[in-house]
Amino acid sequence: MKTRIYNARILTMEEKKRIFDGEIWIDGDTIIYVGPKREAGEETWDREVDAGGNLLMPGFKNAHTHSAMTFLRSHADDMKLDEWLNTRVFPAEAKLTGEDVYWLTKLAVMEYLTSGVTSIFDMYMHRAAGARAVEECGFRNVFCESINDFGGTIEQVEADYHTYNQDKSRLVSYQLGFHAEYTTSRELMEKIAHLAKKYKLPVYVHCSETKKEVEGCRERTGMTPVAYMDSLGLFEYGGGLFHGVHMDDGDFSIIRDKKLYVVTNPASNLKLASGIAPVKRYLGMGIPVAIGTDGPASNNCLDMFREMFLVTGLQKVLCDDPEAVPAMEVLKMATVNGARAMGLPECDTLSEGKKADLIMIDLMQPNMQPLQNVEKNVVYSGSKQNIKMTMVGGKILYQDGEFFLDCQPERIYEKANEIARRILG
Amino acid sequence: MKTRIYNARILTMEEKKRIFDGEIWIDGDTIIYVGPKREAGEETWDREVDAGGNLLMPGFKNAHTHSAMTFLRSHADDMKLDEWLNTRVFPAEAKLTGEDVYWLTKLAVMEYLTSGVTSIFDMYMHRAAGARAVEECGFRNVFCESINDFGGTIEQVEADYHTYNQDKSRLVSYQLGFHAEYTTSRELMEKIAHLAKKYKLPVYVHCSETKKEVEGCRERTGMTPVAYMDSLGLFEYGGGLFHGVHMDDGDFSIIRDKKLYVVTNPASNLKLASGIAPVKRYLGMGIPVAIGTDGPASNNCLDMFREMFLVTGLQKVLCDDPEAVPAMEVLKMATVNGARAMGLPECDTLSEGKKADLIMIDLMQPNMQPLQNVEKNVVYSGSKQNIKMTMVGGKILYQDGEFFLDCQPERIYEKANEIARRILG
Repeated sequence: MKTRIYNARILTMEEKKRIFDGEIWIDGDTIIYVGPKREAGEETWDREVDAGGNLLMPGFKNAHTHSAMTFLRSHADDMKLDEWLNTRVFPAEAKLTGEDVYWLTKLAVMEYLTSGVTSIFDMYMHRAAGARAVEECGFRNVFCESINDFGGTIEQVEADYHTYNQDKSRLVSYQLGFHAEYTTSRELMEKIAHLAKKYKLPVYVHCSETKKEVEGCRERTGMTPVAYMDSLGLFEYGGGLFHGVHMDDGDFSIIRDKKLYVVTNPASNLKLASGIAPVKRYLGMGIPVAIGTDGPASNNCLDMFREMFLVTGLQKVLCDDPEAVPAMEVLKMATVNGARAMGLPECDTLSEGKKADLIMIDLMQPNMQPLQNVEKNVVYSGSKQNIKMTMVGGKILYQDGEFFLDCQPERIYEKANEIARRILG
Repeated sequence: MKTRIYNARILTMEEKKRIFDGEIWIDGDTIIYVGPKREAGEETWDREVDAGGNLLMPGFKNAHTHSAMTFLRSHADDMKLDEWLNTRVFPAEAKLTGEDVYWLTKLAVMEYLTSGVTSIFDMYMHRAAGARAVEECGFRNVFCESINDFGGTIEQVEADYHTYNQDKSRLVSYQLGFHAEYTTSRELMEKIAHLAKKYKLPVYVHCSETKKEVEGCRERTGMTPVAYMDSLGLFEYGGGLFHGVHMDDGDFSIIRDKKLYVVTNPASNLKLASGIAPVKRYLGMGIPVAIGTDGPASNNCLDMFREMFLVTGLQKVLCDDPEAVPAMEVLKMATVNGARAMGLPECDTLSEGKKADLIMIDLMQPNMQPLQNVEKNVVYSGSKQNIKMTMVGGKILYQDGEFFLDCQPERIYEKANEIARRILG
């Protein structure tokens, strides 16, 4: 299938390139031209889309989420992380079947599409069911391994690494990881470190989300979670830390030296009263930061516009500096850094040879007017209402409020409500 | 015109009433029935609307804004409040004509409608032009006087009080106020206090938005802005404080004793690095708090969903308390408290005899599913995308993405861009 999208403003997110007027050509799942208006010549099109002067940019990368937790939305709010996890989340999750995860993941994919998200870094169980859900939708998913003392075996981890990474044409892939220092024994972490070395893999993990987590690790090991995990050899090939809220000076150096990514989750950190991550300091040290929504049980939504405003707004207050983390930096975090953090460098920018994972932002809405600075408008006043189209791998999955999936939204809502009623009562 | 909206979930926002299934009848601009499904009997309808199981609730009240500042959106971001005001905002505003304010206010009204806002407490100049804009749109506006040393006379204030309040059937009304302690001489504040006493009026003012403002007032007067303004007799008949970020113990007592409202503006306070208002403490003392977006130059949007999440999310982190300011409290602030703060008690709840200022929230969207707790869904995962209909005074002004105004959106966008180019270059 060959597609031409014309009459667009284009923000490629390539270094130092500003917005320009032009068009994008797509062959199958790949971008074959991005630039000013151009005669088609020999090209013929299966589909031509008039962008009507609206903005095309790379889709947002949700670099930390737990998709199937949609069933817990608004179920257990207003609680501390540890109580929330142990008394509400873990007991409910224990009742989930693969079929449940299949439907709950589809519900999450719908929500991602309305927010302009084109790929996710998803940490959840019942992986085969989750993979089936996203692949049927035509959505792109990188699984993050979440093994810990309460679930998973190292043999299964090694098998999954092969299963989900062997076919490069699939929309699903896999990165090595584990749940967190506080849920994983030293012995298991050493096995993960061994696997990371065997295949030269980056390792991803929840880290330093709450003060209590850091204090607990210090009591047990005499070290911060970052220092302790590093001492076990987990980060020899890089990786990433989800949350990264409470860090000491030594942690910052380790993160920089081991070339780790940090994925910030500001809405979830507010709602669980975990704190505000030191994003400005990370960026000042050259540490790349990406953005995630975290799961819908703690956030409670999967809205990258909310996260983007929070990333910059919270730093301004935290650092008493209204210049902290300007809009273009936020857009880079939400697109380029996210793609690279989850191992999708082919999805980072709108460029020839890259995947056609892109969104159209409706500029003909009051919150985008006047059009003085479109990048700032997207970060400071944009909302899900502005997502006019979401395309993954050259396929339009959402346009003008309509979903183009393999099943009806009503069926997905019905199933999600059934599951919530059965498990939560 | 008689309207029946049926097949709805209804959240009236009356005390202790939960969501129920039912219908609402409207005659002209007034609600004549709210309750369960009911036979029409003698009634005949000019219009019947099937809510499709979606949620009807009172429209949001944006209790502090500067509508016509839409032209400054994304013009001067990433600056401290005082520098931003003095070097960018005031010089640009000096060039505005009444005709400019007319178009820029219409642009703001469109944005309010997309966010489910049915009335605003608007502090801006060129009031006649602003009034014409909102009345042509069919939108409800309470002007807040903004006199200060750089604009306005006390005679004009008294005249405007009569002009905008004499005809109770108008969509526009007026409350006494002034810009701020730091822009207004003691002499002028005394004249305002005199007027407040003459007509027994509440007084509204920007107050204690930044640390610098409070320190400046202490240096000049030996008192905090709250204490100083109170000592001048400004709050004998109540009123309200916009922002209210930096307060000492004495301030809290004055605010409670003088029965003042506080209007919090969390997005603007983040973006200008002003701080986080002590909302939980206000509420704990029985001080009613309402919510405003502030102007689009500092926010940069007019989105009550963003403000609602910030109100609760920021308190949870500020107070290290995930239970702080639960969802139903936030909804009360955004509807009931806002209406009462701006002198619109007839718009606070969905009840017989009240104004038909209401919104329909689309529950058939992924971010609202499953439907376990609809109130929490609205606050924690709602977005502008969920505004299916906005009705003011019995008239549908926005529905399914379409505006029902007296002029085309494109014309308003064109004018706003022209004005921004002329003034900002």
